[in-house]
Amino acid sequence: MIGEPIMLFRDENGRARALEDRCCHRFAPLSKGRLEADGNIRCLYHCLKFSSDGRCTEIPGQDIIPDAAFVPAYEVEERHGWLWIWMGDKNNADRSLIPPAVGPDDPRYIMRPGRMDYEANYELINDNLTDFSHLSYVHSASFGASESWADERPVVRRIDRGIRVTRWVGGSDKSPVNDDAPEALRSGLSPETALFQTYDYLAPGILTMLSQVLPIELMPDDRGPPDAAVVPIMETFTSQAVTPIDDKHSRYFFAFGPWAKAGDEAADQIYEVTKLAFSEDKEIIEAQQRIINLKPGREVMTSADVGPAQMRSVIRKLIKSETAYEVTSQ
Amino acid sequence: MIGEPIMLFRDENGRARALEDRCCHRFAPLSKGRLEADGNIRCLYHCLKFSSDGRCTEIPGQDIIPDAAFVPAYEVEERHGWLWIWMGDKNNADRSLIPPAVGPDDPRYIMRPGRMDYEANYELINDNLTDFSHLSYVHSASFGASESWADERPVVRRIDRGIRVTRWVGGSDKSPVNDDAPEALRSGLSPETALFQTYDYLAPGILTMLSQVLPIELMPDDRGPPDAAVVPIMETFTSQAVTPIDDKHSRYFFAFGPWAKAGDEAADQIYEVTKLAFSEDKEIIEAQQRIINLKPGREVMTSADVGPAQMRSVIRKLIKSETAYEVTSQ
Amino acid sequence: MIGEPIMLFRDENGRARALEDRCCHRFAPLSKGRLEADGNIRCLYHCLKFSSDGRCTEIPGQDIIPDAAFVPAYEVEERHGWLWIWMGDKNNADRSLIPPAVGPDDPRYIMRPGRMDYEANYELINDNLTDFSHLSYVHSASFGASESWADERPVVRRIDRGIRVTRWVGGSDKSPVNDDAPEALRSGLSPETALFQTYDYLAPGILTMLSQVLPIELMPDDRGPPDAAVVPIMETFTSQAVTPIDDKHSRYFFAFGPWAKAGDEAADQIYEVTKLAFSEDKEIIEAQQRIINLKPGREVMTSADVGPAQMRSVIRKLIKSETAYEVTSQ
Repeated sequence: MIGEPIMLFRDENGRARALEDRCCHRFAPLSKGRLEADGNIRCLYHCLKFSSDGRCTEIPGQDIIPDAAFVPAYEVEERHGWLWIWMGDKNNADRSLIPPAVGPDDPRYIMRPGRMDYEANYELINDNLTDFSHLSYVHSASFGASESWADERPVVRRIDRGIRVTRWVGGSDKSPVNDDAPEALRSGLSPETALFQTYDYLAPGILTMLSQVLPIELMPDDRGPPDAAVVPIMETFTSQAVTPIDDKHSRYFFAFGPWAKAGDEAADQIYEVTKLAFSEDKEIIEAQQRIINLKPGREVMTSADVGPAQMRSVIRKLIKSETAYEVTSQ
Repeated sequence: MIGEPIMLFRDENGRARALEDRCCHRFAPLSKGRLEADGNIRCLYHCLKFSSDGRCTEIPGQDIIPDAAFVPAYEVEERHGWLWIWMGDKNNADRSLIPPAVGPDDPRYIMRPGRMDYEANYELINDNLTDFSHLSYVHSASFGASESWADERPVVRRIDRGIRVTRWVGGSDKSPVNDDAPEALRSGLSPETALFQTYDYLAPGILTMLSQVLPIELMPDDRGPPDAAVVPIMETFTSQAVTPIDDKHSRYFFAFGPWAKAGDEAADQIYEVTKLAFSEDKEIIEAQQRIINLKPGREVMTSADVGPAQMRSVIRKLIKSETAYEVTSQ
Repeated sequence: MIGEPIMLFRDENGRARALEDRCCHRFAPLSKGRLEADGNIRCLYHCLKFSSDGRCTEIPGQDIIPDAAFVPAYEVEERHGWLWIWMGDKNNADRSLIPPAVGPDDPRYIMRPGRMDYEANYELINDNLTDFSHLSYVHSASFGASESWADERPVVRRIDRGIRVTRWVGGSDKSPVNDDAPEALRSGLSPETALFQTYDYLAPGILTMLSQVLPIELMPDDRGPPDAAVVPIMETFTSQAVTPIDDKHSRYFFAFGPWAKAGDEAADQIYEVTKLAFSEDKEIIEAQQRIINLKPGREVMTSADVGPAQMRSVIRKLIKSETAYEVTSQ
């Protein structure tokens, strides 16, 4: 559940594990304890010991261990350089729900990972990531984004647990970037090419996005995806994951990078500009949260809000269905 | 309303304007936006544009602007070096309610302006400013105030939206200041002279005070104001405005200065001692607020509390009448 | 009552006094006031004066002092280098309830006093002090405590307003300390000796503990106290007092020291190691409080929790009886 303290660690086999960070005895945090040679965790207040799946295996000075002596364990899966945790009932954990993110271990790309903490609700970050019209103004200095982003309206389609957003930006008078954009982001762009972007955004806040520079004549009339056989002029990928901490705090994980052939220098440049751009987002979103704290209310939506509105709807429905499940299962 | 975020800016004609600091779209603060050449404000999140009276004039990538797309505007008037804002309905804004404060632009005085932020409710500052008996102890080091202030009881009269406080302090054994008071404040004071002070204190917390040193024989028997034709030996003026931010925070604006003929040096001295004195008030009032936070309750009033009690009553009545108005007008 | 602001001072006779730290007039803290030559306290906002028992003795500029003008006074007693305050009705203050603590003024011991502030509820500190099984792990580095502490179960007996805890630790294979324990704490310990400890823990959180190193053959079969006539090989005393500030803050007073013949150097060493050990407690207890803030709940008790459970029960009963008293007496 949101707001719960979690301890992550690797067991004796190096496998990632998650326990509630709260000894069942006196509620001291297990993360102040110690990982023993047998992969067990020992609380360093009164020294109860727990197996990596949460069972209490020792109480000093006491032979009998009561059934109630355990800490909740959560399912964890390590993929794409990230740990994916299922905070609900272990039996409902479904690894097939983990999206096909791309991490530093993927040889196709040179991905650089990062992390930021937000003093903002995760849905404000979702709103930001499901509507790129903000690129023109928030990121003109970092990404060198042109005004095309605010004028274009992408195609937004509902998918399972989220939305799919695709857009083409480019052509003779609609370049996605300004002349002073970083070199690595201008790579391949010209009046004869366009940027094709497609991303899935999944609950609670996971983005996996492919961007390709393509000859503009390959843009289909319906602005749909290009033929899969086409080899792009340039390609980048980014994986991003917004994790709610509590009502007003979120943790934002991301990885960004170009395809392998672009080389380390381009990867470095993209990573630096990404960090700068994300700090621009953080500044405006945290300011937005402070205003909402002062005065909440009903927003006036624009035609650019199709993505945010659909994503909020997806999350409302998932929350509703999970709440119903919990009531039923008790 | 108290607690609302406000953005102040000058439009293309240099006129001061006030908008709610909250874009109607996503609630980003407009104060992080940009003032355009046409005097419009552009939000720098998704770039909606607003006229200086709050109408949305542009939504990028969208032709139709919904009626709901506006931010509330407030009436603002610039006088005495201050901006006076009417936080209610524009149609009820009445410029004749702005009191005759004296600011740095008044040639009769050399006024120096300042500002302090308080971690205290505005009424605690009102209590302070409507009862000068605290001068003897809080300000003996700064203003060099004598014990006369605590012993004297001023004449307090109810006026429209506030109170009028007048007092005479002085004579052979009742000097308003100690021997070590700053020179500029001792100017003209002697056993043969007295200090006459009159100030209006108006809701929510505006003080405009004239102080004059006069020959003591000009003090009327009823301790009323001196004959208006009399030329004083020395004169100072101060304007002060307590602005509630929220329940426990206030912003305090002030200007203080002697008449023009006293010269810059005296004005500087008076300003320095005023800032010192106001920091003494801030220290005791914020301490008072912390105690009240721990343990509120009913105060024991003294005979020096005529001013504070009347001023609180004025404010209670105004709040009641405005609340009634709001209910009626809905 | 918990959470009330209190001002402690010495009157004209040097006697410790306690007044509510809140002038009855405008609630300015009296602790920002001044102690006058006559032992009265003058508030330095509007200068009301109060006798050391709380009566208002002067209001500047006013002859009559209303009956309501007083601040509550509390009974205070100075003993063992500490001030013992009775926060209830003065008439119910019973000095016989002050426990026989040992302070720096006691010639039998070289006591060094100290103080720590905790961001934790006082009962979490009580839990810590009524169950020494945590010594083995929390204090292995400071006190050099061995694993015997976690394995031994002391004798816990209910006494008036608290519990009495006694234990023997020692013998050939159960040394109370590791080889690297500080020298002063190892003094007299050997395979032929044992540590005898007895302490009373009284509400709300007062510990007075005698520790003696004795020949192991003097340990009675029932592990009860040794014969009173026996002269120990080494002896220390500690007095500790946990004072609730509010629901999540406590102030912890302590004094620790060896008997006089051990000398200053041993006393210094014991004091330094005590401060280190208490900072270890503070770290784990404040972490525990933070976890509880995130997620309270029902703890799983162990057989080492006899002391904590009994002490909590003592406090529950006292709170209940005092609450009943208050209702009756109104």
